[in-house]
Amino acid sequence: MKSTSVHPIQIQRVKGGQSEAVPDLLAVEEPMEIQIWYGPESGRRKMNLSVTMRTPGHDFELAVGFLYGEGIIQSAEDVQDVRYCLDVKSEEEEGNVVVVRLEPWVEFDGEALQRNFYANSSCGVCGKASIEALQMSSCPVLQSGFPRVNADFILGLSESMQQQQTVFKHTGGIHAAVLFDLAGKPLLIREDIGRHNAVDKLIGASLYAGKVPLSEGVLWVSGRAGFELVQKAVRAGIPIMASVGAASSLAVDTAAASGMTLIGFLRQDRFNIYCGAERIGG
Amino acid sequence: MKSTSVHPIQIQRVKGGQSEAVPDLLAVEEPMEIQIWYGPESGRRKMNLSVTMRTPGHDFELAVGFLYGEGIIQSAEDVQDVRYCLDVKSEEEEGNVVVVRLEPWVEFDGEALQRNFYANSSCGVCGKASIEALQMSSCPVLQSGFPRVNADFILGLSESMQQQQTVFKHTGGIHAAVLFDLAGKPLLIREDIGRHNAVDKLIGASLYAGKVPLSEGVLWVSGRAGFELVQKAVRAGIPIMASVGAASSLAVDTAAASGMTLIGFLRQDRFNIYCGAERIGG
Repeated sequence: MKSTSVHPIQIQRVKGGQSEAVPDLLAVEEPMEIQIWYGPESGRRKMNLSVTMRTPGHDFELAVGFLYGEGIIQSAEDVQDVRYCLDVKSEEEEGNVVVVRLEPWVEFDGEALQRNFYANSSCGVCGKASIEALQMSSCPVLQSGFPRVNADFILGLSESMQQQQTVFKHTGGIHAAVLFDLAGKPLLIREDIGRHNAVDKLIGASLYAGKVPLSEGVLWVSGRAGFELVQKAVRAGIPIMASVGAASSLAVDTAAASGMTLIGFLRQDRFNIYCGAERIGG
Repeated sequence: MKSTSVHPIQIQRVKGGQSEAVPDLLAVEEPMEIQIWYGPESGRRKMNLSVTMRTPGHDFELAVGFLYGEGIIQSAEDVQDVRYCLDVKSEEEEGNVVVVRLEPWVEFDGEALQRNFYANSSCGVCGKASIEALQMSSCPVLQSGFPRVNADFILGLSESMQQQQTVFKHTGGIHAAVLFDLAGKPLLIREDIGRHNAVDKLIGASLYAGKVPLSEGVLWVSGRAGFELVQKAVRAGIPIMASVGAASSLAVDTAAASGMTLIGFLRQDRFNIYCGAERIGG
């Protein structure tokens, strides 16, 4: 089973007119395939659901978080078990194929999915071959005006993050998602080469812990805030999301429509509030 | 037809203890669906191939570049025509559904694709529901040791880029891909909220111009170098790729196996060569 998240390599570093061979560390990127088993006891079926490029580690959380984000499961109770496929055809697949067995009661229409060319991925809508299929159902309703935090709380998230993001520090090439509580304490951190995966892992871990909806959680993400990240956060009931990078137009529209507070360009001394400013005090 | 790449918005800016409402610009993010028509004249078929989140603009190049990257077409000649679908079901779909009609001679097995849950996306492997399907065929062979450039050429790419990346300057939230010639002149720039899309657009434009394989091209990308970006570049015959961000383990493996020169962390005065150092002189 492969589960390293950094990979040592010898590189040529060019700096100030000099070139030298030095050791370096790369963030590991490997494909992970999610297979699901579903249907009633009398007629179980199997489906290869998706392949996502991910950094190994917390793979089961990634699988469960992904299924939740896609609306395939409604809670951790819908999952019978998760395991690595042992019957793989090549060495590359070892530890990279995750089998999720759904409980028999979970309604899942594999054929409809296949007909509609769903075949989803870490990136939310990638593979959903219809714009109409974009809008997700069964999102928790966010409580209006709750929680309320102040600007210093938001500015403190970045500072708190500095101690946390371990793989990033080694490679400079990975994304992080961190869940904070209302005291500004980091509860959970997940890292991945894909920003969607980092959030899926974090939500998957929260599902396992029975903590979803995360109605008192504040989500910090290292990259930009795109539509799919906002959608995943809303689906998990997260009321406040802050990103280091910019937000997109659709991310802001989705957050606003869901009543979520969306913050971008969070730096040491500043941030932008795109919507839901009523949750942020002076 | 919607084709704006920036969207004006009113935000709340918090800085130095002050909070004020100010106008801002967001990078536009909208889903784009690619439909293809394929098969012999006697029995044409239609398929919804994928949905990708993209920044509107250069949509036809994106569609054609994507199909090329996926190995569905081998050149621009395989494409009969590209147009926006006019028969859309909702306002949201207007200008967001691109129909690519393939020439009758193009071999495309829609059913096999559907069976294998291919349903691909901007992210290359997203949706390809099998690790075995990852490796792409029909990549041009890169000429060993050619072209050869020096370190100053590489350092000059960033500087040259400063004048080019327009939407980024407005929003801070978009990726760019730039194709340079061997004199260090930027030939083509494409921007998108998705880094894969920016590269697909650039390669699509090059296909339209009959310039693929880009055996004398140097590709600069604003983000990180992941597996899929390297794969797209190799497929287009690009011998040197430089990214501002880090490279992943699989990106380096793929570049090395293909004989491509991969550079990362390209900044004003420094860069790292991960593989293919023989193309970079002192």
